[in-house]
Amino acid sequence: MTHIFSKILDTAINEIAKLPGIGKRTALRLALHINRLPSEEVEQLLSAIKNLKTELHSCEICHNLSDNRICNICNNNKRNPKLICVVQDIRDVIAIEATHQFSGVYHVLGGVISPMDGIGPGQLTLQNLFDRIAATPPEEVILALPATIEGDTTNFYIYKNIRDNVKRITTIARGIGIGEELEFTDEVTLGRSFIARTDFETAYSKNS
Amino acid sequence: MTHIFSKILDTAINEIAKLPGIGKRTALRLALHINRLPSEEVEQLLSAIKNLKTELHSCEICHNLSDNRICNICNNNKRNPKLICVVQDIRDVIAIEATHQFSGVYHVLGGVISPMDGIGPGQLTLQNLFDRIAATPPEEVILALPATIEGDTTNFYIYKNIRDNVKRITTIARGIGIGEELEFTDEVTLGRSFIARTDFETAYSKNS
Repeated sequence: MTHIFSKILDTAINEIAKLPGIGKRTALRLALHINRLPSEEVEQLLSAIKNLKTELHSCEICHNLSDNRICNICNNNKRNPKLICVVQDIRDVIAIEATHQFSGVYHVLGGVISPMDGIGPGQLTLQNLFDRIAATPPEEVILALPATIEGDTTNFYIYKNIRDNVKRITTIARGIGIGEELEFTDEVTLGRSFIARTDFETAYSKNS
Repeated sequence: MTHIFSKILDTAINEIAKLPGIGKRTALRLALHINRLPSEEVEQLLSAIKNLKTELHSCEICHNLSDNRICNICNNNKRNPKLICVVQDIRDVIAIEATHQFSGVYHVLGGVISPMDGIGPGQLTLQNLFDRIAATPPEEVILALPATIEGDTTNFYIYKNIRDNVKRITTIARGIGIGEELEFTDEVTLGRSFIARTDFETAYSKNS
């Protein structure tokens, strides 16, 4: 599939195949499918993709993706703003929301501290989290980061910086397997891990 | 993933998941990926997808997808216009071009006759093929349709309608497995099936 008779098709295949997990063959299928779609449906697809870039905001409070300056979760007065759950990624917010076990608000870090990948505290929204907590100390902060070395490192970094301002700091229960990512955990396990969340010092104590 | 906090993200996921072979989870991954891309790359993707619908033509001669009114293959004077290969789909053109065994031109039917799927001769470019052949009779027509009942039906239908105007009518050799689609055949087998193409009556005779 190196040289195709149509530059337009070839360009589309190359652009679509840049997306993660999509090879050239799948890109060709998608391109031909789009070519056969009614114009109206192509317009809908294009506008939906365009809006992802131009209309989606990062919530000014929690850094979740949002349609407005403040996201629907931070803006919802049924949610408890004194209970903050710290997550790595927006996909974790989606996974946790699906458990219906959490009624607080979030803080999306945008990753975890990972010197191997060149990700230090400065690349994440950690300072925003510390400022947020210092300005309005919450009753509890739940650390819901991946159960990996990088997640643990980030947990400790956050703990050190917020322990003076927060009554209770917890981590979600180690119901999720060590080394596993939150987004691939089933809803029951993930939900249970919220109910059985463990005090930070208990979670990391040698006797736990 | 039924209700997500962002309508923009939700709409994008739904639109992307309408594409064939893409589920909601993959759509979410793609949507988040697109959200993080530089604006320039999103623009390139959008314009490439848009061009698929607005700039791609159906070649007036062979009905292949084309950047112009006449496609690069029909327009190439190194290709033999007296040798027409009839295929079901543009993906078959791409597969055959990759074998570098064929120097003639194509005719893309847009499918095969399939009463079960409600596809009759009228939905395909069969009449265009017959008119094209009647206007300028070629030396040979190669029928390169899938080795399925529908492909065979279409082969016979074409044969009956063009045998008075064409010296030689062939089908590609049955090197490809019965029931297999051309696009999934490896290049060597597909190339060989062009070299060893069989006269129509030989291919369908009981002694062949």
